[in-house]
Amino acid sequence: MSYIAPIKDMLFVMKELAGLDEIGKLPGFEEATLDTAQAVLDESAKLCEAVLAPLNVEGDRNPSVWNEGAVTATPGFKEAFRQFVEGGWQGVQHPLDYEGQGLPKLIGTPCIEMLNAANLSFSLCPLLTDGAIEALLTAGSEEQKQRYVPKLIGGEWTGTMNLTEPQAGSDLALVRTRAEPQGDGTYRLFGTKIFITWGEHDMADNIVHLVLARTPDAPEGVKGISLFIVPKFHVNDDGSLGARNDVHCVSIEHKLGIKASPTAVLQFGDHGGALGYLVGEENRGLEYMFIMMNAARFAVGMQGIAVADRAYQKAVAYAKERVQSRPVDGSAKEAVTIIHHPDVRRMLATMRALTEGARALAYVAAAESDIAHRHPDEAKRAEHQAVYEYLVPIVKGWCTELSIEVASLGVQVHGGMGFIEETGAAQYYRDARILTIYEGTTAIQANDLVSRKTLRDGGAVAKQLIDRIGETIQALSAHDGAAFVSMRDRLQAGARSLAAAVGFVLSNAKRDPNAVFAGSVLYLQLAGIVLAGWQMARAMLAAAANESTDPSFYGAKIATARFYAEHVLPRAAALEVAILSAKGGEGVLALSEDQF
Amino acid sequence: MSYIAPIKDMLFVMKELAGLDEIGKLPGFEEATLDTAQAVLDESAKLCEAVLAPLNVEGDRNPSVWNEGAVTATPGFKEAFRQFVEGGWQGVQHPLDYEGQGLPKLIGTPCIEMLNAANLSFSLCPLLTDGAIEALLTAGSEEQKQRYVPKLIGGEWTGTMNLTEPQAGSDLALVRTRAEPQGDGTYRLFGTKIFITWGEHDMADNIVHLVLARTPDAPEGVKGISLFIVPKFHVNDDGSLGARNDVHCVSIEHKLGIKASPTAVLQFGDHGGALGYLVGEENRGLEYMFIMMNAARFAVGMQGIAVADRAYQKAVAYAKERVQSRPVDGSAKEAVTIIHHPDVRRMLATMRALTEGARALAYVAAAESDIAHRHPDEAKRAEHQAVYEYLVPIVKGWCTELSIEVASLGVQVHGGMGFIEETGAAQYYRDARILTIYEGTTAIQANDLVSRKTLRDGGAVAKQLIDRIGETIQALSAHDGAAFVSMRDRLQAGARSLAAAVGFVLSNAKRDPNAVFAGSVLYLQLAGIVLAGWQMARAMLAAAANESTDPSFYGAKIATARFYAEHVLPRAAALEVAILSAKGGEGVLALSEDQF
Repeated sequence: MSYIAPIKDMLFVMKELAGLDEIGKLPGFEEATLDTAQAVLDESAKLCEAVLAPLNVEGDRNPSVWNEGAVTATPGFKEAFRQFVEGGWQGVQHPLDYEGQGLPKLIGTPCIEMLNAANLSFSLCPLLTDGAIEALLTAGSEEQKQRYVPKLIGGEWTGTMNLTEPQAGSDLALVRTRAEPQGDGTYRLFGTKIFITWGEHDMADNIVHLVLARTPDAPEGVKGISLFIVPKFHVNDDGSLGARNDVHCVSIEHKLGIKASPTAVLQFGDHGGALGYLVGEENRGLEYMFIMMNAARFAVGMQGIAVADRAYQKAVAYAKERVQSRPVDGSAKEAVTIIHHPDVRRMLATMRALTEGARALAYVAAAESDIAHRHPDEAKRAEHQAVYEYLVPIVKGWCTELSIEVASLGVQVHGGMGFIEETGAAQYYRDARILTIYEGTTAIQANDLVSRKTLRDGGAVAKQLIDRIGETIQALSAHDGAAFVSMRDRLQAGARSLAAAVGFVLSNAKRDPNAVFAGSVLYLQLAGIVLAGWQMARAMLAAAANESTDPSFYGAKIATARFYAEHVLPRAAALEVAILSAKGGEGVLALSEDQF
Repeated sequence: MSYIAPIKDMLFVMKELAGLDEIGKLPGFEEATLDTAQAVLDESAKLCEAVLAPLNVEGDRNPSVWNEGAVTATPGFKEAFRQFVEGGWQGVQHPLDYEGQGLPKLIGTPCIEMLNAANLSFSLCPLLTDGAIEALLTAGSEEQKQRYVPKLIGGEWTGTMNLTEPQAGSDLALVRTRAEPQGDGTYRLFGTKIFITWGEHDMADNIVHLVLARTPDAPEGVKGISLFIVPKFHVNDDGSLGARNDVHCVSIEHKLGIKASPTAVLQFGDHGGALGYLVGEENRGLEYMFIMMNAARFAVGMQGIAVADRAYQKAVAYAKERVQSRPVDGSAKEAVTIIHHPDVRRMLATMRALTEGARALAYVAAAESDIAHRHPDEAKRAEHQAVYEYLVPIVKGWCTELSIEVASLGVQVHGGMGFIEETGAAQYYRDARILTIYEGTTAIQANDLVSRKTLRDGGAVAKQLIDRIGETIQALSAHDGAAFVSMRDRLQAGARSLAAAVGFVLSNAKRDPNAVFAGSVLYLQLAGIVLAGWQMARAMLAAAANESTDPSFYGAKIATARFYAEHVLPRAAALEVAILSAKGGEGVLALSEDQF
């Protein structure tokens, strides 16, 4: 088996750290018990392990192929997609009203993790469809919801997000695609979109493109962008498919990784205009797109955790099998499996600690989202929504950055074999590399963290989280033992560094924005390290309380948390120094453009 | 131009940090003046920039091809290799007696850097030939030297190193290739070697394989390995080529990167035995191979610096050209080139600071090697040799690890375009990934640093270097200004961390070797960060002394050194914590094999 879903750790995090019991008490989530969660995860694991994981390497070797506008997915993908949608997996988190399963995000999230770990390229198709569903549910008319959402959830159709244009990458103000009103409530779209994930393929009967474009009188910049539905095939009133719309895939990209996922260049309107339907109101497209993007950003963070775990599992398997060199402590006369070598152990522990810390942080964020949606008290909803929104750029940015580190360590554990493509370790190193870029680069996440999530509320959420870390530090103090002492000291130092960074952002953003934004990615990383370290500390406490029931599992959790404290948390102080060094155009900004 | 050799920085480092003037006073190096160095570098740059650099992407797209035992190099490589050898570049550092140019390693090193930056795959062929030459000059008979070395220096033939076998990667004790004496002084070799770089190709008339093998009565382990010359074609007494020897390339690998460099599986003796000639004495093969390896390890460290610089140059060019988003400080109403965004600036500065720090450290090491070879005073030679040997695993290990970080940042600067192969940034990310693996993984370098370079002399060299850092800190104190204060504080903290790590290694190696080796790679990285930081501090002092003559260049040097102090040196403290945390099987070693 090339991938085994870490269900035990997932359930531990859901129950002990993310508060599954509390989620099950929210209105509408009454069925979300631990038993339900376990049953859903077990079923998801079956599909992911047996069907999707074996296709991962196949997709790398036989990517999607473009031929005269048509894209054929990797052999086996179409059949696997059928199994995926027929199992109801597209609808896990979507409403019962539209044929979804209506489960909490906290239960959907481990399913997303498994899906991505099993097959990153494949998973992008449902991920984008999720985004389209979310946008339609939020901003679409009831007629649009009825027409599109059940088909998307049922997997008869898939969805895409069309933002990027050659001149408009991170900066959507530069979007130029035109939408001309036809007088009958419809529009004709003209323009070129690039980097459209699963923008064309043969896995479903229709593709529902959600497209950002400008109407003729729209104001300049991001406030003049509207959102349109542009189906690949027109949809008749009875839901059957009509003629082909004027949107065509003119090429797909030759990429470093995720090769099975076709990245399309789409041409709209070369033959008279692509028929489009406005979603919500004109000029509010970016706002709606952000709804999709927030969901998609969280999901991309999960992709980071997923590829990290897959790389970890592969490295562990290799390290337990490969025999090389005698142990440095002289405990054996013969060569041993390389997992016995301390540096291999260190690399594996680093991979494991980062992955577990990231998983814990992301699942806790998912639970915040559930409370934000379902809590009966409005003030509570707002409070949890604010925490969730603070965590989204961190989950997206930090969990993807670490996936590159973890995948790279995975190659290193394999030694020379890691560099040979047949081994498979290199695929994760290549695949992971997109994660810090798409759905907003780490810098874009960091801008969001600084501007909308820290400055706007005067650091209130950040400070609240730092206070809660303080409570965990208190709880750690009740334990002796080196592991707890280590975690307490390192987490305290980390929390101080985070507080210093937040303070720096708050006090310098107005008078010296360049200095703040020079350290914004570092602040994001620092927050990720410390907040995930906090979860590892909570995991340690939970493990200590349960240790006698399963000494190996809980003992491993404590050891991994300790490793996190000693090898990952100390990075926080280094980031603090770097963040605080940028003042008044010095340090990072001292070099002029010409001097580079 | 896709690559421009950074000659100004190279000469600055050679003159101000590595002491070119002193090298020019050593016996035999009288011609190694600054003028000579400049002339050599200028000539080297011409070839690298105009001929080799454009072939780099070509090699990635059209790798070497295997067909029935023959390997055809990328189109253009054979002609480029002719130009390379006809320019005398294979012989830069080799003795005049064998038709080399007899220049110091300090002048050869920037040439190696340029070569690798221009074309990493191509450069591996001369790199391996250098190793073969070095081994023959040290251990070969005068007849062997005369027969092989001038042809290797002249580029009529190339050389290889044959160490690895399927069961013997890092652990050469497991080598099984047999060498049977024929009674006439020659041997017949039988076995399989893998990962043989440029082990078969069409760029030269003959290939001189240096092969590790066991004679029938050899002791087990590494003390029973001998070194043999196995030419692809037999060599007649007049130097002309005879029949084909029984060594055949049965396949080449499909790799993540350096695709133009054929990585061969070589089969020795399938048709009666490959005729081989013993180099030096039986059972001393590993010792001789280490001579090649030390040279090769230093050269691989240079590859790290080279690919980092190339990735940096590409990222800077893109950042100056790509227009996206308005500046965060509101200084422009329109979108600007992305180099104006603080986070892009930070990424470029990180790439630059790491690359310059690594270059400075490596060139200083090269000068140590020159003094070790040529100083008239034997005690001085020994002293400098010890410093050089301490630095080799650091140059190899640290400069290659950072090349992955730098190449990855290079992709990030390009955003979505970085993930598209046509852009070219991804090639460096793929190519760099082998550097921490071949010629000894980073862990192997770290074992060397701990065992042979730190424990064996009781930390004498390490402590001597730390003392010398103290002198530089003193010199920094004579300057005021924020940059100098920053560097002084951070370098002092770094030196303390390094001293703590050395102390930990010395006091725990005997009683707790696992704890020491769990942190050996971290110790190597810590040493790299601090020793390169020391060079950046020295660069800062030299720049301050010269600033008025070229304010832009020296000002950039001071700003880059400061950035290094504030963004790179603080990592030292985090490494110290992690190193010191491994005690008595706790921390990194607390997880059992089953718990992974």
